[in-house]
Amino acid sequence: MSREAVMAGRTARRRVLRVRVPAGPGDDARADLLAVEEPLEIRIGGEPLAVTMRTPGDDIDLAAGFLASEGVIASASDVTSIKMCDGNVADVTLGPGVALPDAGLRRNFLTSSACGVCGKDSIDAIRVRASYDVSADPVRVSAGLLVSLPDRLRDEQRVFASTGGLHAAGLFTADGTLLALREDVGRHNAVDKIVGWALRDERLPLAGCVLLVSGRASFELAQKALVAGIPVLAAVSAPSSLAAELADESGMTLIGFLRGASMNVYTGAQRLTP
Amino acid sequence: MSREAVMAGRTARRRVLRVRVPAGPGDDARADLLAVEEPLEIRIGGEPLAVTMRTPGDDIDLAAGFLASEGVIASASDVTSIKMCDGNVADVTLGPGVALPDAGLRRNFLTSSACGVCGKDSIDAIRVRASYDVSADPVRVSAGLLVSLPDRLRDEQRVFASTGGLHAAGLFTADGTLLALREDVGRHNAVDKIVGWALRDERLPLAGCVLLVSGRASFELAQKALVAGIPVLAAVSAPSSLAAELADESGMTLIGFLRGASMNVYTGAQRLTP
Repeated sequence: MSREAVMAGRTARRRVLRVRVPAGPGDDARADLLAVEEPLEIRIGGEPLAVTMRTPGDDIDLAAGFLASEGVIASASDVTSIKMCDGNVADVTLGPGVALPDAGLRRNFLTSSACGVCGKDSIDAIRVRASYDVSADPVRVSAGLLVSLPDRLRDEQRVFASTGGLHAAGLFTADGTLLALREDVGRHNAVDKIVGWALRDERLPLAGCVLLVSGRASFELAQKALVAGIPVLAAVSAPSSLAAELADESGMTLIGFLRGASMNVYTGAQRLTP
Repeated sequence: MSREAVMAGRTARRRVLRVRVPAGPGDDARADLLAVEEPLEIRIGGEPLAVTMRTPGDDIDLAAGFLASEGVIASASDVTSIKMCDGNVADVTLGPGVALPDAGLRRNFLTSSACGVCGKDSIDAIRVRASYDVSADPVRVSAGLLVSLPDRLRDEQRVFASTGGLHAAGLFTADGTLLALREDVGRHNAVDKIVGWALRDERLPLAGCVLLVSGRASFELAQKALVAGIPVLAAVSAPSSLAAELADESGMTLIGFLRGASMNVYTGAQRLTP
């Protein structure tokens, strides 16, 4: 495979609206490259073992490394073959005498085991699960307010300043009121803590709200926001390709690289006001 | 609970050696605060469902949000109670008529289901699994070489520059030769790709090697390095408390905040030369 083909599988081109505050001649639609995120299903002898969201490439190494990390294999001779099927399935045949992992190890990192293994199937599975239709949410958010949120998040963070080791997620109203802030070593946990708080406080769906995350926006985070009915997801860093696809198909506004006085708007730009 | 007690559960104090290149009066041992990482086991009706590595705090919200994200519950009335046991177990009683998730959903995010749910038990489980004793690895690495590695990693990264969305992991020899570099939206995948490559190339254990990761060093990454027999793990950002504990107990050198001309050495400082 050529270097270009490999690169093409690892990045995806999307149209993005670059927005600056105050608005200026630099605001425009352009093409942006996103890191590709797709599920890889690892099977042993045809039986699904785990699904991990990954960037395609070196998938056979990924399957082998995953099994080594889990203690299933320890050397090259423990594996007879690893074959890729359909691009997103790695089917492993263990060597003679290598024990299958017990059922307790069988894992599914992202969604239910019924979930398909191509991005489109995964998106469909998630969309079915989501109870709320965020596409109809009429909320509007000003770009000027959005660019102020990362500093507010940092100011409110209690632990990050002392350790540098925590992700944060903040839930804001469209007029900038902070409803909840949670921190965690895992960004998915920080978002789960917010969603769980809202559920227990009978606030679901979180219509009209903006969820800001301190790092990148993965498919998993977009999924969590969608399940909670959040119409606007903003990330300080980059979104993945599959996060943008899910946002696009579900009518969620997805903003990335929200830093300084600018942002990239990947989907749902109609919700932005100057 | 007082604010101080909450804070104390979320951060852990460790001794750290601050090293600058060239060595100067700023090199010294000091106390550093790390973000606490511990496993939370989520149970339904006493049956283990999932384990997630998290920072303690808002654990009942975390359990509720996790179940909402998985589609198990959708409102406060779907939960009768969530009780914390032993600090690291959230036992959920679902409301009348709410279906238990099927076995396919049962997940274990980190290790086998036999793994305990306090950090110490988890470390013990991982140490048993590791085939290699990195504590005996006699490798020495110069601080001057280490501070050059993050730039080398960035220079070699093929996708990050164009997307800003990928984690990188690089495997180096102690004299600075780059053996492998892998990128992924998930940092655990980038490390699995390196470990899988090494396993398939019959290079395990990776004695004498340095693994550099572009982000933070979690317990999971330290575990993967340990299973592959890597004696030195370096991260551009912060390690978690449990990563430092695992490194300490297994004799691995753990370096964090490897940026510019300095680093924090959390464990195994005897391997560093000027």
